[in-house]
Amino acid sequence: MPRRARGLRTRTAILRRSVDLASAEGLQGLTVGRLADDLGMSKSGLFAHFGSKEELQLATVEMARQIFIDQITRPALSAPKGMPRLWSIIDRWLAYIERGIFKGGCFFTAASFEFDSRRGAVRDRIAEIMREWIGVLVRALEQAQKEGHIVRDTDVTHLAFEIQSIAIGGHWASQLLDDRQSYSRSRAVMLDKLRSVATVPITSSSNNLRPA
Amino acid sequence: MPRRARGLRTRTAILRRSVDLASAEGLQGLTVGRLADDLGMSKSGLFAHFGSKEELQLATVEMARQIFIDQITRPALSAPKGMPRLWSIIDRWLAYIERGIFKGGCFFTAASFEFDSRRGAVRDRIAEIMREWIGVLVRALEQAQKEGHIVRDTDVTHLAFEIQSIAIGGHWASQLLDDRQSYSRSRAVMLDKLRSVATVPITSSSNNLRPA
Repeated sequence: MPRRARGLRTRTAILRRSVDLASAEGLQGLTVGRLADDLGMSKSGLFAHFGSKEELQLATVEMARQIFIDQITRPALSAPKGMPRLWSIIDRWLAYIERGIFKGGCFFTAASFEFDSRRGAVRDRIAEIMREWIGVLVRALEQAQKEGHIVRDTDVTHLAFEIQSIAIGGHWASQLLDDRQSYSRSRAVMLDKLRSVATVPITSSSNNLRPA
Repeated sequence: MPRRARGLRTRTAILRRSVDLASAEGLQGLTVGRLADDLGMSKSGLFAHFGSKEELQLATVEMARQIFIDQITRPALSAPKGMPRLWSIIDRWLAYIERGIFKGGCFFTAASFEFDSRRGAVRDRIAEIMREWIGVLVRALEQAQKEGHIVRDTDVTHLAFEIQSIAIGGHWASQLLDDRQSYSRSRAVMLDKLRSVATVPITSSSNNLRPA
């Protein structure tokens, strides 16, 4: 394998571990030293990849975004426009949280609250990605409305915000209250919410993503 | 004023400032030194009140709970049981967040996410208070159901969780995304949600709590 490709593969492996660590211990606690310890690498070896704590944090945020796109938004594009695609996004997103991909629950929920009262490049990038995500939900809802799959007078911005809030609330109840029903309740509440505005049944080919 | 009463008044004044500081900068960053600096007091003077950082954090959490009870749950008891009392709680709660009583948004939302992956007495107490709060919402919803003010087959636990999620989501959009519509949207979404299960109109004498 050419040296550059090997370097990329190593970088990806390091960042996947870094996303996992950050979701459990916080992005702010993520230092080059902490990550080097965890990976059994030398600090100088890691510094060759990331020159500073901020650079490492930013690269970790980009990796978390990439994982989210690869697991949720890109595969959902194979579902037909309208309710099937909207539900595919939400179903994959819920399944993803339910399977506990990240140790500390949803990476971006944890990072949002950790950085919301800070200033700087990391906070700005997290906010940008969250606006991008709300945009994905709003567009999927608008498409569903255009296809006639949800009722015409639905306020899609309000609905996108509600859907996101239910997911954040699920994270809150699971992580703080150790509430084991939390994610199944999020799923039930979200389905109820969508059914209250849907003109078509809600089913999706991605149901098999749910844990047994 | 007797010495003990003066001591209590000072303690209350210190803790009110401490709640404010913690909501803006985080409960974890709250140290006896940081608070002494902010109040222009000596560290040793403050140590007379609070022997350790954990003791200060716990006392701050108790003060935040007391403010919440004094401003929201106790005054709401003067409204008649059922929908009036339920809406009085929610309306006062929203008005409270809208007026921006705490610098950094809702104290308990910020504290919840800051401590959800830690261990110890502070996290345990925050979780306990949040369970108590969910209990307040569930009981108010059950009373409203008993009075026939909300439809009988409503799942009140799901609804309490949804209401709490919408508030947390409002905090998220306001604090992270600097979304100025965030709290008015939370209010609209919460009202819509309640109206969808209500059998009576939703009005409350506490409407005048809303900011002009």
